[in-house]
Amino acid sequence: MDMQQIGRRARAAASELSVLPGEARAAALAAMPAALEGVRDALMEANAADIAAAREHGTAAPLLKRLEITDTVFSYMQRRLSEAAALPDPVGRVLEGRIRPNGLRVSRVSVPIGVIGIIYESRPNVTTDAAAVCLKSGNAVILRGGSESLRTNMVLADAMCAAAAANGVPGAAIQIVRTADREAVAQMLKMDDCIDVLIPRGGKSLIRRVSEESRIPVIKHYDGICHLYLAPDAPEDMAVSLAVDSKCQRVEVCNALETLLVDRACAERLLPVVVAALRAQGVECRGCPAAREFVSDLVPTTEEDWTSEYLAAILSIRVVDGLAAAVEHINAYGSGHTDSICTRRMDWADRFTTSVDSASVLVNASTRLSGGGDYGMGAVVGISTDKLHARGPVGPNELTTYKWIARGDGHVRASL
Amino acid sequence: MDMQQIGRRARAAASELSVLPGEARAAALAAMPAALEGVRDALMEANAADIAAAREHGTAAPLLKRLEITDTVFSYMQRRLSEAAALPDPVGRVLEGRIRPNGLRVSRVSVPIGVIGIIYESRPNVTTDAAAVCLKSGNAVILRGGSESLRTNMVLADAMCAAAAANGVPGAAIQIVRTADREAVAQMLKMDDCIDVLIPRGGKSLIRRVSEESRIPVIKHYDGICHLYLAPDAPEDMAVSLAVDSKCQRVEVCNALETLLVDRACAERLLPVVVAALRAQGVECRGCPAAREFVSDLVPTTEEDWTSEYLAAILSIRVVDGLAAAVEHINAYGSGHTDSICTRRMDWADRFTTSVDSASVLVNASTRLSGGGDYGMGAVVGISTDKLHARGPVGPNELTTYKWIARGDGHVRASL
Repeated sequence: MDMQQIGRRARAAASELSVLPGEARAAALAAMPAALEGVRDALMEANAADIAAAREHGTAAPLLKRLEITDTVFSYMQRRLSEAAALPDPVGRVLEGRIRPNGLRVSRVSVPIGVIGIIYESRPNVTTDAAAVCLKSGNAVILRGGSESLRTNMVLADAMCAAAAANGVPGAAIQIVRTADREAVAQMLKMDDCIDVLIPRGGKSLIRRVSEESRIPVIKHYDGICHLYLAPDAPEDMAVSLAVDSKCQRVEVCNALETLLVDRACAERLLPVVVAALRAQGVECRGCPAAREFVSDLVPTTEEDWTSEYLAAILSIRVVDGLAAAVEHINAYGSGHTDSICTRRMDWADRFTTSVDSASVLVNASTRLSGGGDYGMGAVVGISTDKLHARGPVGPNELTTYKWIARGDGHVRASL
Repeated sequence: MDMQQIGRRARAAASELSVLPGEARAAALAAMPAALEGVRDALMEANAADIAAAREHGTAAPLLKRLEITDTVFSYMQRRLSEAAALPDPVGRVLEGRIRPNGLRVSRVSVPIGVIGIIYESRPNVTTDAAAVCLKSGNAVILRGGSESLRTNMVLADAMCAAAAANGVPGAAIQIVRTADREAVAQMLKMDDCIDVLIPRGGKSLIRRVSEESRIPVIKHYDGICHLYLAPDAPEDMAVSLAVDSKCQRVEVCNALETLLVDRACAERLLPVVVAALRAQGVECRGCPAAREFVSDLVPTTEEDWTSEYLAAILSIRVVDGLAAAVEHINAYGSGHTDSICTRRMDWADRFTTSVDSASVLVNASTRLSGGGDYGMGAVVGISTDKLHARGPVGPNELTTYKWIARGDGHVRASL
């Protein structure tokens, strides 16, 4: 596997893509669902072979499940590609502009970043999602998926490349690393001349490794330690419904609820009903000493609970003295991902959204609603809890940079 | 010097600043010119002491000149603070927003980044400029100026802090590292819990050290290898005027011209007059073999010339075969800072602005016009040639990040 060659081809493709009209990129994406349909049998065969090999290697059941392209997953992949084709072009947006007093016409215009490297777990839908978002934004992408999904990913990439090439998009716009050799990842981390940004997805150890070993800028999030704060006036129905949806709608995702903060002023009124509703969904509820005064049989929390991303049917509960204490807890223990308040009072809602230092701050909404789809961004390639460049869901707009363009008529600085 | 304490104070100040109205920040900035006036004698005394000590240590004349606060520099510093006060608030801009089909009201709103660390050379005006840009954008700043300017910087910082405190802005919003000990820089680079972004300004070795040693995100530019391309139809007057202004208006700055690309189709017509005009300004002109066919006594260039940022009255000249070759040269040898084309043809101008991969791409304008002031951005704290987060001049807007705010009415993801 010659990673350097992959890098050079990606760089050349990025250069071609930078001058290609958005229509060509959209046409290529629009052709991809049919291209996938055309290779469906080969794809399912490759996927079955990947799953069989993974099972033979003793891969755990949840991983096998993620690896499988069911009919639902296949339709989802196709739909995401179609949706990306239909999105407005993220390239060429005039982000700001003005005519200066001297007549110089200045504008700031969005352009592709260049080459994106994506390192991810064995989830074939990430292959199509990532390709869709990167091509939509005019970037070349180097995809390095989990080795268990290599056969599947090769079929997917070949089909997408063929659709790209048939529409005037360079085939090297979408490249997949065609080896299970782990050395390929180590090489990717060093290719700062060919890769402009890395997006690692998957376990925390992978993300940490990428951030620490590579000099290439990284878009990432480590944790999703998300909070819901029930303010003193939180209505019972909404409190129950938000807590249950945030925690239970899907427990293993990064915007699922991990810690419920209950104001002391409403703890007696709300804690027993909220805990009962959560327990009815099979959630293990853990509580601080104050919370156990209201529901005595909560599992006692330790300091570790406040920094734990359970990704499971477990919830930690803390009673706090007022909104300021809730914000303080969130900013101290949270991961800056998604935090929500339940209140009818606008001043509290505003103080919460202003003071909580997170990528997504919600009012009267489930933490599960912080995402590219629910925000109306279309396909996304990940979520960022960093503050620079992209924060929150990373969609096509977030994979652009900009350039300043200034048009004059012989304008000079003048005073020699 | 307890750097950790400086970091903790900055973090606390950033938290206060995040909820402080823009009016308070503007009032603090507006009060600073008078505050500087109030300490003018002490400032001039401290500056004289800094200069005397630097001279005693054998500091070179250009550095001494940069260190000096002349009346002109003093007025400039005051004016930049006033200008920053008057700029629109970069915080709280709604960057995008929509009401989703389910009624969820989603918006993306600009917020301060947090704590900015600035490491810079001995130029006292950077102290006030950086403080102005950082406070305007609601960030706390830790300033580490060149050790030769320490006495001056301490007087400046004290005056600005007093003006801040008098207007309800935490004094720790602007902190200066009060030691000449170089160990302080090494400590700053490690403070990733307290500093959100580092902006190194000065020599390339400093910038490289900061980028390589620190895990904190860095906004930077290494080089300004700027090009002007004379297209076949470039009018003689404009070609001469742009070349002379770009190269000569100030030779030691990052957006000064370093390489002139002349299309072969106009080389015979333009090269002799352009070279004569540049030589009249005392510029040493170096040329590739093809250029020397038109002006025989050009100093021969070597490969090294194309990657040299002279920062001096030297210019390299290359004859290129067409616009594509000019773009190829710029993208291969340039630093992605500022590049300009001289042409009357709109299609060539558009191809140039689309294909050149630089922070600023200019048409019929001197490279010297790529800057925050000429773009109408007000005070800036540096220029970035990176592609992520900020590209080009870094002003108050560029020192903000954003958060997503979603307001619902009990909205849930629903399908359990």
